[in-house]
Amino acid sequence: MQDEQYMDIAFDLAERGRGRTHPNPRVGAVLVRDGQIVGRGFHRGPGTAHAEAAALAEAGGKARGATLYCTLEPCAHFGRTPPCAQAVVDAGVRRVVAALQDPDPRVNGRGFALLRGAGIQVTLLEGRAAQLAKRQNAPFLKAVTRGLPYITYKAAHSLDGKVAAASGDARWISGEQSRQLVHEMRARADAVLVGAGTVRRDDPQLTVRLCEGRDPARVVLSASGDVPLAATLVREAARASTIVLTVTMPPAHEERLLAAGVRVERYGGDVREALQRLATLHIYDVLLEGGPTLASDLFAAGLVDRVAFFVAPLLLGTGALELVGWPAPGSVAAGLRLRAPAWRQVGEDALLEADVEGA
Amino acid sequence: MQDEQYMDIAFDLAERGRGRTHPNPRVGAVLVRDGQIVGRGFHRGPGTAHAEAAALAEAGGKARGATLYCTLEPCAHFGRTPPCAQAVVDAGVRRVVAALQDPDPRVNGRGFALLRGAGIQVTLLEGRAAQLAKRQNAPFLKAVTRGLPYITYKAAHSLDGKVAAASGDARWISGEQSRQLVHEMRARADAVLVGAGTVRRDDPQLTVRLCEGRDPARVVLSASGDVPLAATLVREAARASTIVLTVTMPPAHEERLLAAGVRVERYGGDVREALQRLATLHIYDVLLEGGPTLASDLFAAGLVDRVAFFVAPLLLGTGALELVGWPAPGSVAAGLRLRAPAWRQVGEDALLEADVEGA
Repeated sequence: MQDEQYMDIAFDLAERGRGRTHPNPRVGAVLVRDGQIVGRGFHRGPGTAHAEAAALAEAGGKARGATLYCTLEPCAHFGRTPPCAQAVVDAGVRRVVAALQDPDPRVNGRGFALLRGAGIQVTLLEGRAAQLAKRQNAPFLKAVTRGLPYITYKAAHSLDGKVAAASGDARWISGEQSRQLVHEMRARADAVLVGAGTVRRDDPQLTVRLCEGRDPARVVLSASGDVPLAATLVREAARASTIVLTVTMPPAHEERLLAAGVRVERYGGDVREALQRLATLHIYDVLLEGGPTLASDLFAAGLVDRVAFFVAPLLLGTGALELVGWPAPGSVAAGLRLRAPAWRQVGEDALLEADVEGA
Repeated sequence: MQDEQYMDIAFDLAERGRGRTHPNPRVGAVLVRDGQIVGRGFHRGPGTAHAEAAALAEAGGKARGATLYCTLEPCAHFGRTPPCAQAVVDAGVRRVVAALQDPDPRVNGRGFALLRGAGIQVTLLEGRAAQLAKRQNAPFLKAVTRGLPYITYKAAHSLDGKVAAASGDARWISGEQSRQLVHEMRARADAVLVGAGTVRRDDPQLTVRLCEGRDPARVVLSASGDVPLAATLVREAARASTIVLTVTMPPAHEERLLAAGVRVERYGGDVREALQRLATLHIYDVLLEGGPTLASDLFAAGLVDRVAFFVAPLLLGTGALELVGWPAPGSVAAGLRLRAPAWRQVGEDALLEADVEGA
């Protein structure tokens, strides 16, 4: 097998930590000696062994002279666990192949330097492996490099681009399988983000009910702070962490929300600043569930990274709530074209997953 | 092999006539004796042998005692070719398996009766085979039973349901592979249908250029008859049959269009009547290419049978030309839900093909 093939095994291992490693990155590691895999590991979450340490533990003495494949640069600092790069040196590993340098300022090349300093040959893969590594840890990478969470805008809409009927009714545009997939997306996200309009209109729970998994934090962005005490999110704040980001919420209302168990955070009025606040709370992977006003604001500010659109085989008509709220440009070429689109059928719907240009 | 498996071979054969048999149905036939296929045939177009006759010709003397699988009831009347049912009897075929009775009033059970009268065992398949047969000849079946063409509404639109930008610009919403597929659809259709608004706005050619194939007839529906003489469709009327359906076109304009080689047909003002006129011209399989006004009228009248929507990974915005022009209903449940949707990725776009409920 080639380096890329062993790295694919490490990527698969890393994937097993999805939704659990937060705020740490997903990492997988494979130790290979004489063409045999002698150790495998992945990071299971904060406070548990890093992937490299888990692979070394499995390999024991067989790590001596082996090659380590890891999806991210081994760390060089003491966090909740000791530095992996030193453990790799101590175990007598001869070569390290990594898919990506860890841009975390505490690492950022120091891991590789430590390894090279100990005479270990270090190979940094490029091309496809680097792309896969960036994709796998996109939220972590965005947070550590830009101080912003990675935003995936999820919406379910009709073929003609409506997210609700004329009355605001939206049950159900997408099918059962699509709705179940949304719950799986929630279970993998750090938080679900909505505008206060969606809370007032739909009174959603935003919890994980249609599949196994933990509830994400529920974040409501509301400059005015008009989040009703009677909202399900507020009444069930004990069930899952609930955060309201606000600019001008009256202190009396804030006190009542706090008493109900809701966390209230203030920002200056710029949505970018609101999202930065989330990153400081270690909320990196955010599923934006609407509504169109908030989504349009975040698109306009270049803050949406990815979309997950469930398109239902349904025609609604004119005058209903639209998927995006900005005025159309004069030319098609000036529209917002999504990158690397991947479509698949989910029940009767299509799911489009794609990157947002320039985000 | 079972009856259904031989019938599948006949369906595949029939498919080879797609786009060529008009106004006749697509038909495939397989002759099987002692588990061996001894003859195959499909209808290649008007005036040529029917599928059964072609299979009998290939089998020669081996047809005696064989079973004939045919996708449609063998005909019992003299048309441009002699009746197939009699030829099947004369060849000594012992059993006939058909997927569908031919509802053409000249056949409609008479073929089966002739076979049974000659002592041939006749099996009419049900379930899946009957469904496939209906799907394969949907335009022919609709025309002979209801006197109306089968309408497939093709559109290319953004994720948010816009068929053009704010200025009316629509080049290009969908990708190159999608546009090529549209040309393949045109090559298989009897006619392409557009409203006069589309002619005035886009001045389309509606010919087959991005693939091999013959041009369909180009039909413009225009109650007022406002089809400019300068339109490409009119100037190039010699290239492909061009028909304008109108209610109140001034006679002087009609004369100029006729001089340019355009056929002008009048109807009373009801779109259903306009389409019936097309069926009498043996135009059964119609690709509706817009615009939204005409499409909405035909949807409202229950005259659209199928959709082929190319959805581009593109967001345009509000205020641009919408995919459908009717006002949205109060509830999602009252929207127009398409049936049996099949999605597939074409380049960066998705293609949805689905049936229209109740058409």
